[in-house]
Amino acid sequence: MNTVLLTGFEPFNQQPINPAWETVRALDGWRGDDHVVVSRQLPCVFGDALAALHAAIDELRPDVVIAVGQAGGRSDITVERVAINVDDAPIADNRGARIVDEPVIPGGPVGYFSTLPIKAIVHALREAGIPASVSQTAGTFVCNHVFYGLMHALRDKPAIRGGFIHIPFLPQQAARQPVPTPSMSLADMIEAVKIAVATTCSTTGDLREAGGGTH
Amino acid sequence: MNTVLLTGFEPFNQQPINPAWETVRALDGWRGDDHVVVSRQLPCVFGDALAALHAAIDELRPDVVIAVGQAGGRSDITVERVAINVDDAPIADNRGARIVDEPVIPGGPVGYFSTLPIKAIVHALREAGIPASVSQTAGTFVCNHVFYGLMHALRDKPAIRGGFIHIPFLPQQAARQPVPTPSMSLADMIEAVKIAVATTCSTTGDLREAGGGTH
Amino acid sequence: MNTVLLTGFEPFNQQPINPAWETVRALDGWRGDDHVVVSRQLPCVFGDALAALHAAIDELRPDVVIAVGQAGGRSDITVERVAINVDDAPIADNRGARIVDEPVIPGGPVGYFSTLPIKAIVHALREAGIPASVSQTAGTFVCNHVFYGLMHALRDKPAIRGGFIHIPFLPQQAARQPVPTPSMSLADMIEAVKIAVATTCSTTGDLREAGGGTH
Amino acid sequence: MNTVLLTGFEPFNQQPINPAWETVRALDGWRGDDHVVVSRQLPCVFGDALAALHAAIDELRPDVVIAVGQAGGRSDITVERVAINVDDAPIADNRGARIVDEPVIPGGPVGYFSTLPIKAIVHALREAGIPASVSQTAGTFVCNHVFYGLMHALRDKPAIRGGFIHIPFLPQQAARQPVPTPSMSLADMIEAVKIAVATTCSTTGDLREAGGGTH
Repeated sequence: MNTVLLTGFEPFNQQPINPAWETVRALDGWRGDDHVVVSRQLPCVFGDALAALHAAIDELRPDVVIAVGQAGGRSDITVERVAINVDDAPIADNRGARIVDEPVIPGGPVGYFSTLPIKAIVHALREAGIPASVSQTAGTFVCNHVFYGLMHALRDKPAIRGGFIHIPFLPQQAARQPVPTPSMSLADMIEAVKIAVATTCSTTGDLREAGGGTH
Repeated sequence: MNTVLLTGFEPFNQQPINPAWETVRALDGWRGDDHVVVSRQLPCVFGDALAALHAAIDELRPDVVIAVGQAGGRSDITVERVAINVDDAPIADNRGARIVDEPVIPGGPVGYFSTLPIKAIVHALREAGIPASVSQTAGTFVCNHVFYGLMHALRDKPAIRGGFIHIPFLPQQAARQPVPTPSMSLADMIEAVKIAVATTCSTTGDLREAGGGTH
Repeated sequence: MNTVLLTGFEPFNQQPINPAWETVRALDGWRGDDHVVVSRQLPCVFGDALAALHAAIDELRPDVVIAVGQAGGRSDITVERVAINVDDAPIADNRGARIVDEPVIPGGPVGYFSTLPIKAIVHALREAGIPASVSQTAGTFVCNHVFYGLMHALRDKPAIRGGFIHIPFLPQQAARQPVPTPSMSLADMIEAVKIAVATTCSTTGDLREAGGGTH
Repeated sequence: MNTVLLTGFEPFNQQPINPAWETVRALDGWRGDDHVVVSRQLPCVFGDALAALHAAIDELRPDVVIAVGQAGGRSDITVERVAINVDDAPIADNRGARIVDEPVIPGGPVGYFSTLPIKAIVHALREAGIPASVSQTAGTFVCNHVFYGLMHALRDKPAIRGGFIHIPFLPQQAARQPVPTPSMSLADMIEAVKIAVATTCSTTGDLREAGGGTH
């Protein structure tokens, strides 16, 4: 039985809601044949977010950790490939900090790759009719910060797989944007994360299927 | 009791499904306090589409006609403002025709405005959390062709209101596109058209609320 | 000898410069074998813009009128197909007015088509290596207002051809935008308008070449 | 006197021209007060591109290496922050190879950061009126392959600074695209690379200015 830790952030950047938290909290306690899900909210604050993540990992000793975050403006589920060791905030975090060009972990390596089966997840999502792609950048804000900190924490625990998935705005968020903006229904986002969990738990290694970009 | 005619197209451009038809057929027979919906499919063929529309209007004598079409790539519900008297097909219709720069109705006026309460519909959709905006162009393909032909048929029947609404791809269509492409769930598109119908039936005149573009 | 009147707007929407005016003023006095260009600036003000346009037409008695406007965010030269009889301002004009859903000309027809050879212009621009396309909407702000008012003024003067061309931001404008935004060099925009003038003066009728949109 | 090696690729993906090569070859031999530029073309072929780059470095012993590549669809000059250790080709390279999920350098670290002053370059470009931004991903095709291989080669030569800059399509390339696509004039791209070279040669360290993304 795999314990799967899902995390989602509190709302940020003036949004009243965060689709990542809405999605993962709907899956808290979800049991499959070979896994059980525990969901936790993270603050959208540099440093504090990682502290909360580390505490949850210590407490729950999960087999899989999938951090989920909002990518307002993207139209599909994007499974992140790589976290990089830099905080460079284009907006303030929820404590007002705008960190520029500081490492997430001083002395840490430049990057970590996701250890989720990212190609298999994208493949399974598309098969299920949910738009999805591999993303080559998780940005440089709190999402990447958590993704990098997660992979750094797991660096010498190869039995625990981890990674990050970005999801679009909810329709009600897009409805308040000044220009037409893509969104996805909560039901499809919940289904997408379920598929990501199930695919991870049932997959060893990954598919070898193109998922890159020319730039 | 208002009779509301909804039309949706058959699939076109290699798509196996058309969200417009899926949406309107789900509403066939829907009765509200003051309306009943009848839904009809139109062929995605210049000329034939209008013939089918005219036959349905003659048969049903509706009070409101809302034609619905797929706008692959748009992210929100777009309520069309104006139909123009030109067919200029960027792709072949379902009979293989690629008409270029022919009038929809020879001798007809350059354009017709929708007689739906387009601002009230957009307002109601956003209030309901569904992304929506006014669109200043319905293109120059079969959608605009039907929109123009509809408004031309209604030109001396002011008691019958008519217009056109474009809707995005379904998620399963977007999942097969080579690049990330916006979509909307079928449930939200059905809810959107219900709101458009109800708003039209309950509104005389229209809201005066900005809905234009600088270009 | 054709007299060609080119118009460009003063800056608007907090921009310090308007590429349309920069472009057309560079062509003031330009003579070809069969034409001479006169360029005039228009205020970005509903009503006043048309008054200035009409005065210029009365004074200069041009054979061709091409109004040029800035379409910030578009990436190519867009030759407009149709003007519609509505002012619906998403931003304030330069006198602070935000007109919503008023006709440009009370009692005027819904729309007017450009009488420039729009397909021949787009074809010639692409042949010259300048990105260009036909646009099905000039928006509902002062650009469309001038385009509609121009075509209304020319409605019973078929010997005078007129139309509207939108051009992108200049690079220095795009460099100040908060997100990556397309632009075009002033040299290419000047060359583009020269080609539009020359093509108009040398073309009777228009090419029949697809230039429409599915939506 | 700094020797600056600029590289640009041969055309790829059915394009008849590559703006990167057109740009850097225009600067071959350009001398400033404190630098001289040498430009070399690289094949758009996995492996061979790096072999050619390494040979040029061995031969020229440059102080600065800036590899330049085409990013068709981007609208501005994008100064890349990070190279990652993966080849995942969405299209075939010029020898027909479509490598999927192979490391650029087996056993190499996940990523390398650019050692160019990326923030200072973006700042200088915008000051000069050229649209520019920091990019968090150079993709996973031959551009990233060369960027990663370059930084790996320089990993124990801190005196040699290196990095990668992506540039848009030329206007004549965008003019042949089926949909409106951003571009930049060759003159502006040449000016941009000159500014990047001069900024690098005159800057120690980097500016600390926000240049990140939320995702």
